[in-house]
Amino acid sequence: MRTLYHWPLDPDSRQARLALAEKKLKFKLVQVTPWAPEEDFLRLCTEGVPPCLTEDTNTGKTVISTARAICEFVADDQGSRYPLMPNTPQERAEVRRMAQWFDVKFAGDVNAYILSERIEKSFSGTGAPDPAVLRVGREHMKFHFEYLSWLLETRDWIAGSSLSLADLAAGAHLSCLDYLDEVNWDKWDGLKNWYQKLKSRPSFRPLLADIVPGLRPPRHYADLDF
Amino acid sequence: MRTLYHWPLDPDSRQARLALAEKKLKFKLVQVTPWAPEEDFLRLCTEGVPPCLTEDTNTGKTVISTARAICEFVADDQGSRYPLMPNTPQERAEVRRMAQWFDVKFAGDVNAYILSERIEKSFSGTGAPDPAVLRVGREHMKFHFEYLSWLLETRDWIAGSSLSLADLAAGAHLSCLDYLDEVNWDKWDGLKNWYQKLKSRPSFRPLLADIVPGLRPPRHYADLDF
Repeated sequence: MRTLYHWPLDPDSRQARLALAEKKLKFKLVQVTPWAPEEDFLRLCTEGVPPCLTEDTNTGKTVISTARAICEFVADDQGSRYPLMPNTPQERAEVRRMAQWFDVKFAGDVNAYILSERIEKSFSGTGAPDPAVLRVGREHMKFHFEYLSWLLETRDWIAGSSLSLADLAAGAHLSCLDYLDEVNWDKWDGLKNWYQKLKSRPSFRPLLADIVPGLRPPRHYADLDF
Repeated sequence: MRTLYHWPLDPDSRQARLALAEKKLKFKLVQVTPWAPEEDFLRLCTEGVPPCLTEDTNTGKTVISTARAICEFVADDQGSRYPLMPNTPQERAEVRRMAQWFDVKFAGDVNAYILSERIEKSFSGTGAPDPAVLRVGREHMKFHFEYLSWLLETRDWIAGSSLSLADLAAGAHLSCLDYLDEVNWDKWDGLKNWYQKLKSRPSFRPLLADIVPGLRPPRHYADLDF
C-alpha cells in the first residue's frame, strides 16, 4: 500500500505524482494543506509539508519526504522499465542540475513570489496578493523562460534527449503557473512544444483534472491543444 | 584533469570539495567570486555561480554545476570504494531528504540571513549587516539545530548509520557558520560530537586551512579538539 500526501497546486507534490505515475506505480492520494497541516500528518512526516510518500513493506513503513528524495527513490531502479534517469553519470548530472535549478532557483525566484502571493495568501486568509511582489515574480519568470527556451533549442527534453526527472520538475512548476493563467504560451514557442508533449502523457492527466475550490483554472489549462 | 570552481565560504562549494576529497579524487581549485564572476567563468558555467566541476575526458569536457549534481555525480559509482551513498533505496532516500533539507530549508532559513548579511554584503560593499536580519537567521539556526540534535540522538550520522552526502551537506553549512563564529558549540553536545568526527576526516583539512582575507575565523575553527 502506497500513499502520497500532497497538495494539488504545490509543484513539489506534483513532481512526486508525476514520477509515480510515469513509473506506473499505484498510489492513493491524501490531500494535506501546507499552511495548516493536521496533527496526524505532522506525526507521520517530520518535514511537516507535502509531499510525503509512505509505503507499507514487509519490514514496516517507509516514509519519504521532499520532492527530490521521493522522485529519486521512485527512479532509483536503473535498468527498469520507464526510466526517469538517463544511462551515463554525465547525463544524470545534467538531470540533477536542472532538477536542482527548479527546486532552488526557479522556486525561489518565481514561486516564492507568484504562488505564495496568489495561493497561500488567499487560502490562508493572510491578505490580498501584493501587485509589486507579483511583478517581481513575473519578471523572474520571463527571464527563466528565456533560459529554458534557449536550452530547448538544442535538446528535446529539459536535460537532454530523453524524458527525465528534470522534465517532471519543470512540468510540475509550469503547470501550477498555468493553472493560475500566468503563462502567455504564444510568446514561448519552444517551451510550448515541450509542454505540449509532456501534457499529453498519461501521467499528466490527473493534474489536468485538478480543481481547487475557489480558484478556477483558465480554459486552456486542461486542453492538450492549447 | 579535474577542476573545481569554488568560493571558500560558500556551503555549496564546500559540499563539492568534501565529496571529491572523500572519494580521493584529485582536483585543482580555482576561486570564483559569486557576486562578481569573471567572463571566462560565465562562458563556462551557465549557472553563473560556483560550484562548477569540469573534467577533461576522451570525448571532450564535462561541465557540471550545482552542489547537488556534483555531489551525486561524484558519488555515482555504487559499489566503489569510499561510498557516500548507502546500499538500499530507502536509506538513499533519507540521504537525499536531508541533503535537500540543507540545500533548500537550511540555506533559505539561515544562510539567506546570516551568510548573505555577513559575507556577501561586506565583500560586495553593499552595506553593513542588518542586526534585525541576523537575529532572524540566528533564531532559525537554533530551531534547526534542535532538529539536527534530535536526529543525532538515534543515529551516528546525519542520515543514518554511515557517513553520506547528507553529512557533507551539513558539514559544509555548519563549517561556514563556524568560520563566522556563529555556533556556540557548548550548547549543542550531540551536534558537536558529530561535527568533531567529521572535522577530523582528511577531507575536511583543506577547509580548516581556508583563510578569507579581511575575515578571520575564531581560534577554535581549525581546532579538532574545540
